[in-house]
Amino acid sequence: MASEDVAVSDLLGSALASIREDVDHHFDLLLPVPDDARARLFAAMRHAAIGGGKRLRPLLVTATAGMFGVDRDAAVRAGCAVEAIHAYSLIHDDLPCMDDDDLRHGRPTVHLEFDEATAVLAGDALHALAFDILVSPQVTSDPFIRSELVATLARASGMDGMAGGQMMDMMAEQAGENEGGFDLHTVTRLQQLKTGALLGASVEMGAIMGRVPPEGRAHLKSYARDIGLAFQIADDLLDHEGDAELAGKALRKDAVAGKATFVSLLGAERAREQAHMLVEQAIGHLASHGEEADVLRAIARYIVERDR
Amino acid sequence: MASEDVAVSDLLGSALASIREDVDHHFDLLLPVPDDARARLFAAMRHAAIGGGKRLRPLLVTATAGMFGVDRDAAVRAGCAVEAIHAYSLIHDDLPCMDDDDLRHGRPTVHLEFDEATAVLAGDALHALAFDILVSPQVTSDPFIRSELVATLARASGMDGMAGGQMMDMMAEQAGENEGGFDLHTVTRLQQLKTGALLGASVEMGAIMGRVPPEGRAHLKSYARDIGLAFQIADDLLDHEGDAELAGKALRKDAVAGKATFVSLLGAERAREQAHMLVEQAIGHLASHGEEADVLRAIARYIVERDR
Repeated sequence: MASEDVAVSDLLGSALASIREDVDHHFDLLLPVPDDARARLFAAMRHAAIGGGKRLRPLLVTATAGMFGVDRDAAVRAGCAVEAIHAYSLIHDDLPCMDDDDLRHGRPTVHLEFDEATAVLAGDALHALAFDILVSPQVTSDPFIRSELVATLARASGMDGMAGGQMMDMMAEQAGENEGGFDLHTVTRLQQLKTGALLGASVEMGAIMGRVPPEGRAHLKSYARDIGLAFQIADDLLDHEGDAELAGKALRKDAVAGKATFVSLLGAERAREQAHMLVEQAIGHLASHGEEADVLRAIARYIVERDR
Repeated sequence: MASEDVAVSDLLGSALASIREDVDHHFDLLLPVPDDARARLFAAMRHAAIGGGKRLRPLLVTATAGMFGVDRDAAVRAGCAVEAIHAYSLIHDDLPCMDDDDLRHGRPTVHLEFDEATAVLAGDALHALAFDILVSPQVTSDPFIRSELVATLARASGMDGMAGGQMMDMMAEQAGENEGGFDLHTVTRLQQLKTGALLGASVEMGAIMGRVPPEGRAHLKSYARDIGLAFQIADDLLDHEGDAELAGKALRKDAVAGKATFVSLLGAERAREQAHMLVEQAIGHLASHGEEADVLRAIARYIVERDR
């Protein structure tokens, strides 16, 4: 390993450690368990939001915001808004009527630890919390920035973003059970919505907080699009050949379901090449930036090298 | 019936008819079924959002906004945002793991017409759509107003509003199954969160669009609090003695579940008196307004006189 790689990897390691701590800290403050009949709801929200996950989305927000001199605490809070959306989507995806998963981040899923109704509600409440966080004065005192953040997150999570992608994913499973599975073009579009939209929103929100005008965000959005696809290909590879214990969730589900993925369509070898190509392309989009973009570069590399 | 009552009731009848038409029209435009694997999601969202419901929340937004000269089209759109939140909450409340209802607005619930996974997702997508609508330039071009609208709606729908109230409601059912049911104070608090918060947000959002400063909104919030409780008492009375066919949903569920309600705690007669007292009190809060508040007055009366 070249010394430059060591430095980059140290940089990422400490960035990941501090974002985990900061996000946990903020959710702890945001979710004080009340002394009334809502206590169970708050406990379920805490189970989902605190102490698990890589916190990749908040890190993308803070790393991008940091490039433009945004106050770190404000960026962490905006990152928590994105993470609240991500956490709600995992609770709902894990439900028996959806993926029916028992394990998430190495712990029982919310509907197992609590019950299904509480899981549905905890997801809904985290969804609303995301927007509640974004409009707090601690994120920004500028109403224009605030409404741009809300617009970006709402679009990324709804029918033209994550929820739309999740629907396509359910149809992909059905298509896999019948004859005609999805082709590469459709799987790419599916993943751009299901995973890519929220990763892209994370980067874009960091830039919005940094008062980067829309035309100055284009290369950052290209970076996000490339790492989003690379992330999903890496996820498909982990599902195909990863370690379930390390991943903290069930694996090999796609193959069992006969669902078209990047790995089933391209084969593991070409999928891996494609992921590495996308990472190089993502880093290329940052060429106009100096070392202030080193965390984003390190994230791009980490995305395909992670083992969970 | 005095001629004044006839006029008020005509006023309300035409206001209800136009808001129904306008809300349907906007959701029709907002939810064009795409020619891809998301089609089923959009169809489920349309099933929930178009062609059913009294549209009371959008009417509260437009009636309040109208008092302060707000453009009607803008207020209808903000009303659609509130209605999207209401519609998502009904989809999720009807799920088998929650209330397990088959009928809503006289039609099959979303999880029966489609399936449970699609119902969860359609609710989630309508939740995100609400915020997407609020940040559209057609609602307001003023970012300050926009962020106040988002803050009001996010707070009313989350853990300190509707979702928190729904959790309390689930606990009320459990408390009913065991020995100690909820007392009147706790049921009041529950309903203020579960139903009152979103009705209150509807009125407040109309006032925000009318640029009424927070101190000028106090009496409108009091009006909303009173009609919110009256609405819930009327709902309990309908559940107790109403016509399921007219209501378009299953009734007598609370008594079967042994759940504490205003009717079980006060008796039907005192509950009815209480509802009428709250309506008079609500109308009293509008004393500083002239005929521009007649629709709000008519809504207050309608809330306890409706048969569905």
